[in-house]
Amino acid sequence: MNKSIFRGIIAYPITPFNDQEQIDIPLFKRLLERMILAGTHGIAPLGSTGVMPYLNDEEKEALTEATIAQVAGRVPVLTGVSNLTTERTIYHAKFAEKTGSDAVMILPMSYWKLNDKEIFAHYEAVAKAISIPIMAYNNPATGGVDMSPTLLKKLLEIPNVTMIKESSGDLQRMHTLRKDLGEEVAFFNGSNPLALGAFSAGATGWCTAASNLIPELNIGLYEAIVKNDLKAAQILFYKQLDLLRFLVEKGLPRSIKAGLELMGEDAGQLRGPLKPLAKEEIAEMKTILDEVLNFSAPLRFSEHDPRVHNQ
Amino acid sequence: MNKSIFRGIIAYPITPFNDQEQIDIPLFKRLLERMILAGTHGIAPLGSTGVMPYLNDEEKEALTEATIAQVAGRVPVLTGVSNLTTERTIYHAKFAEKTGSDAVMILPMSYWKLNDKEIFAHYEAVAKAISIPIMAYNNPATGGVDMSPTLLKKLLEIPNVTMIKESSGDLQRMHTLRKDLGEEVAFFNGSNPLALGAFSAGATGWCTAASNLIPELNIGLYEAIVKNDLKAAQILFYKQLDLLRFLVEKGLPRSIKAGLELMGEDAGQLRGPLKPLAKEEIAEMKTILDEVLNFSAPLRFSEHDPRVHNQ
Amino acid sequence: MNKSIFRGIIAYPITPFNDQEQIDIPLFKRLLERMILAGTHGIAPLGSTGVMPYLNDEEKEALTEATIAQVAGRVPVLTGVSNLTTERTIYHAKFAEKTGSDAVMILPMSYWKLNDKEIFAHYEAVAKAISIPIMAYNNPATGGVDMSPTLLKKLLEIPNVTMIKESSGDLQRMHTLRKDLGEEVAFFNGSNPLALGAFSAGATGWCTAASNLIPELNIGLYEAIVKNDLKAAQILFYKQLDLLRFLVEKGLPRSIKAGLELMGEDAGQLRGPLKPLAKEEIAEMKTILDEVLNFSAPLRFSEHDPRVHNQ
Amino acid sequence: MNKSIFRGIIAYPITPFNDQEQIDIPLFKRLLERMILAGTHGIAPLGSTGVMPYLNDEEKEALTEATIAQVAGRVPVLTGVSNLTTERTIYHAKFAEKTGSDAVMILPMSYWKLNDKEIFAHYEAVAKAISIPIMAYNNPATGGVDMSPTLLKKLLEIPNVTMIKESSGDLQRMHTLRKDLGEEVAFFNGSNPLALGAFSAGATGWCTAASNLIPELNIGLYEAIVKNDLKAAQILFYKQLDLLRFLVEKGLPRSIKAGLELMGEDAGQLRGPLKPLAKEEIAEMKTILDEVLNFSAPLRFSEHDPRVHNQ
Repeated sequence: MNKSIFRGIIAYPITPFNDQEQIDIPLFKRLLERMILAGTHGIAPLGSTGVMPYLNDEEKEALTEATIAQVAGRVPVLTGVSNLTTERTIYHAKFAEKTGSDAVMILPMSYWKLNDKEIFAHYEAVAKAISIPIMAYNNPATGGVDMSPTLLKKLLEIPNVTMIKESSGDLQRMHTLRKDLGEEVAFFNGSNPLALGAFSAGATGWCTAASNLIPELNIGLYEAIVKNDLKAAQILFYKQLDLLRFLVEKGLPRSIKAGLELMGEDAGQLRGPLKPLAKEEIAEMKTILDEVLNFSAPLRFSEHDPRVHNQ
Repeated sequence: MNKSIFRGIIAYPITPFNDQEQIDIPLFKRLLERMILAGTHGIAPLGSTGVMPYLNDEEKEALTEATIAQVAGRVPVLTGVSNLTTERTIYHAKFAEKTGSDAVMILPMSYWKLNDKEIFAHYEAVAKAISIPIMAYNNPATGGVDMSPTLLKKLLEIPNVTMIKESSGDLQRMHTLRKDLGEEVAFFNGSNPLALGAFSAGATGWCTAASNLIPELNIGLYEAIVKNDLKAAQILFYKQLDLLRFLVEKGLPRSIKAGLELMGEDAGQLRGPLKPLAKEEIAEMKTILDEVLNFSAPLRFSEHDPRVHNQ
Repeated sequence: MNKSIFRGIIAYPITPFNDQEQIDIPLFKRLLERMILAGTHGIAPLGSTGVMPYLNDEEKEALTEATIAQVAGRVPVLTGVSNLTTERTIYHAKFAEKTGSDAVMILPMSYWKLNDKEIFAHYEAVAKAISIPIMAYNNPATGGVDMSPTLLKKLLEIPNVTMIKESSGDLQRMHTLRKDLGEEVAFFNGSNPLALGAFSAGATGWCTAASNLIPELNIGLYEAIVKNDLKAAQILFYKQLDLLRFLVEKGLPRSIKAGLELMGEDAGQLRGPLKPLAKEEIAEMKTILDEVLNFSAPLRFSEHDPRVHNQ
Repeated sequence: MNKSIFRGIIAYPITPFNDQEQIDIPLFKRLLERMILAGTHGIAPLGSTGVMPYLNDEEKEALTEATIAQVAGRVPVLTGVSNLTTERTIYHAKFAEKTGSDAVMILPMSYWKLNDKEIFAHYEAVAKAISIPIMAYNNPATGGVDMSPTLLKKLLEIPNVTMIKESSGDLQRMHTLRKDLGEEVAFFNGSNPLALGAFSAGATGWCTAASNLIPELNIGLYEAIVKNDLKAAQILFYKQLDLLRFLVEKGLPRSIKAGLELMGEDAGQLRGPLKPLAKEEIAEMKTILDEVLNFSAPLRFSEHDPRVHNQ
């Protein structure tokens, strides 16, 4: 088994804005607290869910500080510090470390598709500037570059690059990571509809924004896997699958906002050009969410439900 | 649970040829027998592995008869009867039924990409002409058309279309089948490297040519799943993964032939334009196979590890 | 300039069937004659348009003989002889030569994706068995394998492989062929909506089923290119583009049949599983065809129309 | 014909940095001047070539001002103002207008894939804030979203969205734009290897960084098209094709820098994580460039070269 401080469900908070499209720190903290109380195993501010690329430097710093203050050491914190330029990435990585993050997550953001040499040098430069661990994050869809397993393996030679997050949504990639990197390397799944497949393939954790809405189901799936109970994991996964797909299809910031509001929570505003879901989309989400929440309710209380736990 | 007569490991024999590129029925029977003795749960002649599309009508009939004779009722037989025209598909389906096949497998072969209406009518016409069950087979790579889950669902309305085989290699497709079709419909995985993911997603069986080489490992994986032992399934899957990938990458007829020969079995010749693997490819396969067989050996004899062994 | 006997518009006839799904030779000849009289520069029976893969050996032979008899030397004949096995390809190539074809067209049909070595050996074996020229045909969508420019270049080392037909629909592929193979090699475009782009890139000819419906517009486009009149070529191309796209989208055998019937011609039946276009599709085609034919009419008579010819 | 103030070759300058990775304005102006003197028909600062997304607000403003000052009204200026947020896009668009740009170019940059409604609102908000024309820029590879012809058509309903730049590299998209939008709408090609195809399809201009290196060949191609001389256009295009492909394959900022240096020009440094081409890549480029420049030389002086002009 690997020795990563991160494991299980790593929750990604959204970044709420007020009516003037300014970040709303008190609301951010409140939404964070919900996920900590629900039992998630780690918190990751300034991810895609937190619309990090749409924020300026001051806003990123304020959210980093707010996270550390609110989490207060209860779970490890993984701060997103990705930036198009190496200089800015280093700047934010140092800030994250100084402020108390347990690790940083770095996506090789690419407007111009970076080659392997450039990506390696980018990670190396950041790694030298900080002492905390780095999670190398592969997400071709948002990052614009697909890091091969070979490159990921090479990145792990940099001493403090110790974790990998895969969001390409390709199960074979997970298989390759596990085969090539060995069991001691922690790899995390960032593709929500792949949660069951990735855990079945041996993933250490699941990085998910779904924990803004259904942390119990996310955690339940992970716990079934830990207990080696595939049948329970299947039941739990299929219960949340429609919601996971909806979240991905509509975009996490938009759909998490809509879901929170459907659950009676204030989720603030989005920053333009992002816009709230349309009425029909919200109605569709309500149907999905109603079905999911109805099921998940007993999970919170009944440890012995024969449907979801074996012996 | 579904009531399919097929489940577990459905083994796909190759079609061996002699030096004049004529089919070698005695050798075909001998190779078939190996897989039956190894404990596979079903036999599927005239699949892609058996190079069905490269055979003329007489050859297909001879192989169908040979299979029924050799299997002799020990396991169910699933005969491939796909053809570009509806008329020929019906012809071979009727022959398969008459000869004693338990079911037929039909891929909607497409030179001209068929539309949904045409595919449905094609299956319906064949279904009306026979009484045994039909497995609808989706394999965009070889069939040239990708049947959507919606179409597959509609095909299941035809009374004797009762099984689905998915070879698109897309785990999400498996999830959708399970969600949309419900647990009572049997779906089978035809993508070798997806074996663990598909079983984790709830597949009823695995259609595989790998059982020509490593039937014990294939069966072991299935049995671990039946026992709800994901950890054992992972160990068994990762042991065979490199071989499964090699088989797919090099093409099943070529790589199964090479593997059988590496194991000391006569596998006959291929029919042109297919050619044997190159020397370097065979050497690569030897390395992979040595590692896999070395591991699988104890599986045959050590009966007491409850997680990873059958019997 | 290359010395190919083929150039310009190579017309692909459909294969009409009667109500019992048997080939209708008299109708086939009548449809062929229309295209010869319209002035097309070559005739290519047993192509995709002629549903060659859906025919048995006897039918292929009958259609080959009927073509040679009807064309009677007025234009060169390019006969399709592609088959999954090398043995059958040789058989049909020899038949085509014996019957009087000027050249044969060979697609490396692949159920099992062929590697470069296999494809080369396949072409070489056929080439050795005949004396007439071979057109190597690349069509990843129907053939199942994409021959790289490097492989195509190598195929041209076989003495009687002298022409290339590209149907991948990728303009860059055309550019590469022209750059790599030089101006002396004849390459033909088989992607209808790429007709203008391919001619602009230097293609020697256009292999098209559209000449069943709009031979004048096809020929007009080619003649504008020959006259170095790009502006006229643009006007002619954009006039036929909607129809070309419709033909491709709906599948050539189905849409050519519908178009012929809309123009008052008998086009016979299709062979199952292929079915006629739906009523709405035919209505859509009527609108497109009306607009195109309306325009193309004056082209037949007015050589000096200032819209389509300069100087 | 459309009435766009832009036509022909729109040149994209690089943004040079000094050894401390700070922008080098004097060098930027010098490189700009080369392209103006060479006869390009427009200048577009702050494009992808100019690594706009890697610059902070102050740097963008300095480059905008430097361009206007240097161009001094000799050719129209098209300033890139794309930004992930609507608020920042408006800010830079207003700055571009105030400083004297003739038009702005806007790519719907997407970290989160924007939907059509969001994209329309984004353009509309910027359009309302300025009076100069907007070029809507589609580049799925760098922008992360592919605007359909339908959406582009809708964007043109916004009064000052008057031009479209297509960099998807798909010739069919060009055909669709011309068919759907009509001849009065100016569409520009942003895919270098598609230059001949796009002009043949009717493009109004070509947005290219290649004019940093071979403006004469770029201009020559355009002029051949204007003269309706396809044969000359073909010769000129095939001469520059290898270089155009190299530029795209290696990334414009890296390859333009290398090319300028090979031609004896100072091109400054890149900003990290972008790195210069490797030695082997530069050697490969030298071979390509030598061949191209050797040919292009006479083009500058001999208007009557029989190889490139007809009549």
